[in-house]
Amino acid sequence: MNASEFRRRGKEMVDYVADYLEGIEGRPVYPDVEPGYLRPLIPTAAPQEPEAFEDIINDIEKIIMPGVTHWHSPYFFAYFPTASSYPAMLADMLCGAIGCIGFSWAASPACTELETVMMDWLGKMLQLPEAFLAGKAGEGGGVIQGSASEATLVALLAARTKVIRQLQARTPELTQAAIMEKLVAYSSDQAHSSVERAGLIGGVKLKAIPSDGKFAMRASALQEALEQDKAAGLIPFFVVATLGTTSCCSFDNLLEVGPICKKEDMWLHIDAAYAGSAFICPEFRHLLNGVEFADSFNFNPHKWLLVNFDCSAMWVKKRTDLTGAFKLDPVYLKHSHQDSGLITDYRHWQIPLGRRFRSLKMWFVFRMYGVKGLQAYIRKHIHLAHKFESLVRQDSRFEICAEVTLGLVCFRLKGSNQLNEALLQRINSAKKIHLVPCHLRDKIVLRFAVCARTVESAHVQFAWEHIKELAGDVLRVEKE
Amino acid sequence: MNASEFRRRGKEMVDYVADYLEGIEGRPVYPDVEPGYLRPLIPTAAPQEPEAFEDIINDIEKIIMPGVTHWHSPYFFAYFPTASSYPAMLADMLCGAIGCIGFSWAASPACTELETVMMDWLGKMLQLPEAFLAGKAGEGGGVIQGSASEATLVALLAARTKVIRQLQARTPELTQAAIMEKLVAYSSDQAHSSVERAGLIGGVKLKAIPSDGKFAMRASALQEALEQDKAAGLIPFFVVATLGTTSCCSFDNLLEVGPICKKEDMWLHIDAAYAGSAFICPEFRHLLNGVEFADSFNFNPHKWLLVNFDCSAMWVKKRTDLTGAFKLDPVYLKHSHQDSGLITDYRHWQIPLGRRFRSLKMWFVFRMYGVKGLQAYIRKHIHLAHKFESLVRQDSRFEICAEVTLGLVCFRLKGSNQLNEALLQRINSAKKIHLVPCHLRDKIVLRFAVCARTVESAHVQFAWEHIKELAGDVLRVEKE
Repeated sequence: MNASEFRRRGKEMVDYVADYLEGIEGRPVYPDVEPGYLRPLIPTAAPQEPEAFEDIINDIEKIIMPGVTHWHSPYFFAYFPTASSYPAMLADMLCGAIGCIGFSWAASPACTELETVMMDWLGKMLQLPEAFLAGKAGEGGGVIQGSASEATLVALLAARTKVIRQLQARTPELTQAAIMEKLVAYSSDQAHSSVERAGLIGGVKLKAIPSDGKFAMRASALQEALEQDKAAGLIPFFVVATLGTTSCCSFDNLLEVGPICKKEDMWLHIDAAYAGSAFICPEFRHLLNGVEFADSFNFNPHKWLLVNFDCSAMWVKKRTDLTGAFKLDPVYLKHSHQDSGLITDYRHWQIPLGRRFRSLKMWFVFRMYGVKGLQAYIRKHIHLAHKFESLVRQDSRFEICAEVTLGLVCFRLKGSNQLNEALLQRINSAKKIHLVPCHLRDKIVLRFAVCARTVESAHVQFAWEHIKELAGDVLRVEKE
Repeated sequence: MNASEFRRRGKEMVDYVADYLEGIEGRPVYPDVEPGYLRPLIPTAAPQEPEAFEDIINDIEKIIMPGVTHWHSPYFFAYFPTASSYPAMLADMLCGAIGCIGFSWAASPACTELETVMMDWLGKMLQLPEAFLAGKAGEGGGVIQGSASEATLVALLAARTKVIRQLQARTPELTQAAIMEKLVAYSSDQAHSSVERAGLIGGVKLKAIPSDGKFAMRASALQEALEQDKAAGLIPFFVVATLGTTSCCSFDNLLEVGPICKKEDMWLHIDAAYAGSAFICPEFRHLLNGVEFADSFNFNPHKWLLVNFDCSAMWVKKRTDLTGAFKLDPVYLKHSHQDSGLITDYRHWQIPLGRRFRSLKMWFVFRMYGVKGLQAYIRKHIHLAHKFESLVRQDSRFEICAEVTLGLVCFRLKGSNQLNEALLQRINSAKKIHLVPCHLRDKIVLRFAVCARTVESAHVQFAWEHIKELAGDVLRVEKE
């Protein structure tokens, strides 16, 4: 395919994309396929000779679309949102064309420098403490990671390296293994599974702190675990506080947890993967109070800030903590500026070596929406969540299971877990809307997350009427 | 921005992309900017109100392009290639629009199933042993990772989990830390820095095996290290063999190393990040002989197989080895098919949780080029490398420093490292072509990598004339 055919096919694809997103409401949100549906539909091996573009584009509707869960349908209320906006898609086209690999400053200075500045812009939007910004001479700064999981892992590895070095400086005969055996990290029992995974990968113990009645990690429970572990000779070194848990969007108490981390000299990482986007609104910024105690902070603009996946924003107060954990400098990656202290080589901030020019997406989105446009978007979603909450509260057969702070509503039929599982199964089999469940303590709970960019009040109303109707069916069956 | 404005702006962007790539030869391949160039060119914070698209698109030429290293310029001969093709860009547009997050089968069945089948297609193109393919009922299979670094890390973690479980099964009182302290991994002293990093992250020792005169890891050196380490009470568990090293594209001797790994029950991971693409040509497939001894194999179609970054292809013989190392199943990710054994939840195969629909790029590229088109592309690059090699060999002032097998030529001026550093500096200051150096033993060597999709014989000829001229200058200065 040459440039002139790309001009033609690219424009057709732009129209296909626009048609898809304009018509997405008409597609069933959840696909009606069984595992293994795709393999029989396509050849067993790649073709030897080139095929025509028409054949490929026709196969999209025949083979791909029937198996797609439409995350951008306004009837998609599952998981958490994943961002989708036209400005981000335009930026991604440019990113693909430039196609640079930005592992070092020299590998494409614009790729590195725009990222640093965009992370400063975003940090200012969140009113992050100055210490997290790179500015012209700061010790902190931001980096785009692929996912919140990677950010948590990177923070844990940096903290692990730091504590090992500190202890070995004091007691040189201590081996790394002897230290690692005693290291303990902490998070709430409501933290995302990726935190447990970071502990597994990093080869350190991770303890789940029992959350309180509002599913928040509090000082007392953390302090209790610390005292026990220290008495047992263990070395607490790392705490993950979650702002907006995946199950029910609860918030760990940063103002309690933060000072403990300082006092005990533990690295505090904040995971606000979903909720972080809301902190650009002054009325929700208080949820981030206590961030000043943190060593690292992360949230996902690719969830709720209209920057398409992947774009997970991570800041650290001391960037040498990250780079110190990873820095290895082979000759083929050396360049003349790298020891000047003026430049950033982002490969030292992350697990992979290669990286795309993802800050273009932030730049396009921030400029084309403006801060006010982004705030309006967040507020609309939160408004819709409260609307759904009030609908649920008006029906005495249902209960709300956790405080609705942002765009997630946890609810259930009063009664058994079995009843709620039956309801969920009916909802997802009907395929008119899509939800996923969670456990809150011993209860099965339904999660209603406001997700799509195009979701409106009417969709929420429809979803609720639909849920009510299916609930009626389930309750009738139960009585029979 | 609504759909109708996206239709207009998207088509403008398609033209911008085509213009950029058609005109890339006219831009200086390496940018003329100093660290910090970008920050003064843009505001210190995001705008409150939305800006016009025209303003943003105009800033691309003003602010971004002056700082871009043009990886797809036919005068770019640095690092290794990064893939760029129009079919992959079209697929990425579709990927962005669908915008699903494929962490589980249910999260978008098409995303998971196309990936499994594309990895089988690609495995067949490479003539991988059947055991690596998923097929309908295989125990192996492929996954798209973000980078070769992640693939190496995932393999190391899987091997670590496996050996710890085996040893604890035999000796239950052994702690994980006690085992980890004794684990040793091995790679050649020519292996990529990401291998050392995987060892750091995984908290295990990594030893560099001295390579032979052709920069290859051989049986004798590996065996010697093993014997020493076992005698010292250590536990060898993991070997990374590199096919196509970053420095000089040398090949570890798989047919020697493989049987040792089997005999010693060590996990063998093969990293063929760059070279792997060449194995689709029957005349280069012999370089992969011995893959049958491996537990995992990885290469980067995003380097040399026209599938834009990121697409790093990894296969394992036993997928339960990977999933066993990572599997954690919170309720909000559970779905009805997951315990059926029929489906793949790729989140258990990788470090991040989220993942894009990257197999669309493979599907588009494989079909629009056909296997023959891809083979022709690889052969053209290798032909150009040999052309450059023969030009160098005709000039007695220069020497070739390593066997030219694929698309990389390592060469230098006969004489001091200082001389070669001076030559490199002149080349990169002139900005007509771009190269990076490497160390081979104690020698500074220049790497000429055939990179761009559009590079032709004339560009190689130009590069050589230019290098010769600058070499003349350097030698003249030296004599003075």
